[in-house]
Amino acid sequence: MRRSRLSPEREGELYEAVVELLGEVGYDALTMDAVAARTHSSKATLYRQWKGKPQLVASALRHTKPVSLQDIDTGSLRGDLHEIVRCTDSARERDAALMRGLAQAIHTHPDLHQALRELLIYPEMAALDALLRRAVDRGEVAPDRPALDYVVHMMCGALIARSLIDGEEPDVAFLSHYIDAVVLPALGL
Amino acid sequence: MRRSRLSPEREGELYEAVVELLGEVGYDALTMDAVAARTHSSKATLYRQWKGKPQLVASALRHTKPVSLQDIDTGSLRGDLHEIVRCTDSARERDAALMRGLAQAIHTHPDLHQALRELLIYPEMAALDALLRRAVDRGEVAPDRPALDYVVHMMCGALIARSLIDGEEPDVAFLSHYIDAVVLPALGL
Repeated sequence: MRRSRLSPEREGELYEAVVELLGEVGYDALTMDAVAARTHSSKATLYRQWKGKPQLVASALRHTKPVSLQDIDTGSLRGDLHEIVRCTDSARERDAALMRGLAQAIHTHPDLHQALRELLIYPEMAALDALLRRAVDRGEVAPDRPALDYVVHMMCGALIARSLIDGEEPDVAFLSHYIDAVVLPALGL
Repeated sequence: MRRSRLSPEREGELYEAVVELLGEVGYDALTMDAVAARTHSSKATLYRQWKGKPQLVASALRHTKPVSLQDIDTGSLRGDLHEIVRCTDSARERDAALMRGLAQAIHTHPDLHQALRELLIYPEMAALDALLRRAVDRGEVAPDRPALDYVVHMMCGALIARSLIDGEEPDVAFLSHYIDAVVLPALGL
């Protein structure tokens, strides 16, 4: 861990403000000046704490996400997957809006994509791998089951196609049904 | 069919130009004036032929898509799904760019979402349903298999998570592997 000059509370406030701004104006229009103004901090502090805008945004998204996958361990794979869906429900609309805004930004700003991978995606994928490894260790899933590599892909599809194709919200009821209809059967359960 | 004043060739040229413009400037900045200028046609012609911008864009996307699902019938479900992937390969990059640009536009313009559903999504979903029904009739898939409703969701996830999460292109090799690892097992094959 890098030595921080901000208290965890202050850092948390800052992250909330960044995510708020991101939802309001999008990544392109989000400036370090706007973050400094909104949070009554100096740009020097922001640049001292984070390398730049991509790192600040990725850190903010990591620290404000509704659930840490590594905290979930119900004792069964089905229980774990349903628990993830339940925990993310409160942040679903916020996350959908952020993701729509970020999809284009990620493509045009490779530095943002890189920061998101390092700070958000890789840690979450590692936690998901650990969750799936426990299911393999318990004998729920065969270790060579090919779908083990694609749980994120399956869930991503449920979130996106539910609104784009079906024109409906991917709520807890839908996602829970999808887990039982698609994810668990693909894993051989 | 509505009586058309444009020849099919002329209509095809127009659709190509609309998709080209869409990729260049995005939905918000695409105007009927720009389409008229690019295609040397009058705005009156455009409005006579299509109701407005959402219908013109949705029609253009339908008529320039790389493959019609209803033309695919290889005799097995696995063959059909692999054939879809193979046929869409040439248009993959174009489609990915269009989809990124449209994801936000669909959300802010309900009339575009509605036109896309009527002119593009519903017909394609009906063709996919027919393809899946043939597999059920051949005895490849049980008629009450829950994953039958989610083939589009699974494939959507493969396309989007491959670039967003993995940072790689969803090429034919990846999508073919995903069909065998996820889609067919979820359907019980």
